[in-house]
Amino acid sequence: MDHITLDRCCIHTITTRPWTLPEAVENYAAAGVKGISVWQNAIEGIGPHRAGELIRQAGLDVVSYVRGGFFPHTSSAGRAQAIDHNKKLLEEAAALGAPLIVLVCGASPDQSLETSREQIREGIEAILPLAEKLNVKLAIEPLHPMYAADRSAINTLGQANDMAEIFQSSYVGVAVDVYHLWWDGDLEKEIARCGANGNLLAYHVCDWKVKTVDMLNDRGLMGEGCINLKKIRSWVESAGFDGYCEVEIFSDIHWAKDQHQFLKEVTGAFIEKV
Amino acid sequence: MDHITLDRCCIHTITTRPWTLPEAVENYAAAGVKGISVWQNAIEGIGPHRAGELIRQAGLDVVSYVRGGFFPHTSSAGRAQAIDHNKKLLEEAAALGAPLIVLVCGASPDQSLETSREQIREGIEAILPLAEKLNVKLAIEPLHPMYAADRSAINTLGQANDMAEIFQSSYVGVAVDVYHLWWDGDLEKEIARCGANGNLLAYHVCDWKVKTVDMLNDRGLMGEGCINLKKIRSWVESAGFDGYCEVEIFSDIHWAKDQHQFLKEVTGAFIEKV
Repeated sequence: MDHITLDRCCIHTITTRPWTLPEAVENYAAAGVKGISVWQNAIEGIGPHRAGELIRQAGLDVVSYVRGGFFPHTSSAGRAQAIDHNKKLLEEAAALGAPLIVLVCGASPDQSLETSREQIREGIEAILPLAEKLNVKLAIEPLHPMYAADRSAINTLGQANDMAEIFQSSYVGVAVDVYHLWWDGDLEKEIARCGANGNLLAYHVCDWKVKTVDMLNDRGLMGEGCINLKKIRSWVESAGFDGYCEVEIFSDIHWAKDQHQFLKEVTGAFIEKV
Repeated sequence: MDHITLDRCCIHTITTRPWTLPEAVENYAAAGVKGISVWQNAIEGIGPHRAGELIRQAGLDVVSYVRGGFFPHTSSAGRAQAIDHNKKLLEEAAALGAPLIVLVCGASPDQSLETSREQIREGIEAILPLAEKLNVKLAIEPLHPMYAADRSAINTLGQANDMAEIFQSSYVGVAVDVYHLWWDGDLEKEIARCGANGNLLAYHVCDWKVKTVDMLNDRGLMGEGCINLKKIRSWVESAGFDGYCEVEIFSDIHWAKDQHQFLKEVTGAFIEKV
């Protein structure tokens, strides 16, 4: 497997949350990072169009816009509102110049996971025509089973592949995030499956800390945990993926650091560990 | 599905952790509970033989002894020590009069999950002759994927079934715990699978709190969370299981309560929600 360089490094703005978008763009570009995935909060006050210009002027690629989804609700009004919100996100993604939006699909503790999955299918179906019109792809991101109660009823890559394949559209695929999927005995097989049918749209990296103290904001920098990142990248590349490896870390510990120092750690860990 | 009564209620001693074993036995029996699963810490200072007498004198059944396993280690010395420890636990289980021990199989963050699974297989193979001799069964308990780093490399009922079926022995089966498995889209199918081949040895209940704040000690009382307990019990019973429903709750919040009050909540929730 090839040694990886920063030419394939993308960073999610949430990773360096204390920075504004202009700070993130300037510092990522100066560090030799080539891609940026933009969280919605990062463009507040700037707007998607101006944010896209700023990013391209710095020589960075917009890799994804994060994040749509959250389709399931027990009320039809709630589901309709979610669809409208996702359409707005698609318009923003197009204005930003993002080729895809990531879908954290959603779940409701007040109904079965099967019902939530059916509502996710309906939600994707409702926004797909706009996605095609705007040329923005939809990447279904399976979330770790510990988020099944209220964040996502799609908890394995197998389920995400099942969902994506329903649509038979080049505008619906999956995002593979090692944090959510590293434990799954079927991961290699399911990565090959989405690669083979053109549905492997994005690859996210971080690490799983053995002593995780917070279920949401204690992700590890690559190398801080137990995920075999090089093995999983080899599966992703064997499946034909040659896009960006996106660093997406939510961490109270890392956010509390000087972000210049942290960015050095991120780029160093990317080259060594990914 | 039948309305459930306390005749099928077993409680794990860990659920009322502040109580000593004699307190737990006296209070469970007085509440109409019929079974008890004994954690190793509960018999410290009493010993398994005397503990078993105490339990039977109160009219309770010993349902299981908890817990063996933790077979994987990077060193062969560590693995040999784990096997010895499990043999000691089997002797204790037999002295206690427990028909089975629960296996939390273990994992090591310093090796692959595949390697850990192979070491689990070797560990079970090494203790199986003693289990047969002592007439104590081994129940492989799959743990939630959030414990894959260092507690168990067996994270779905499918994996537990695969492991159990290797041995083709009536002394190796699985324990189904809703906390670990509720999210799994294959759960109904895998429950039917272990039921059909006689491997469904135990059924554990509690609840998954939507806002779980601690990955280990924030389990919910039945009804506090989002698990459809009645549906899963219907699957277990359709698979032929008619044994105890074992209440196993680790909860800093519930342990901090008056345990008499908590026991009333447990028995009430058992009748209403399980």
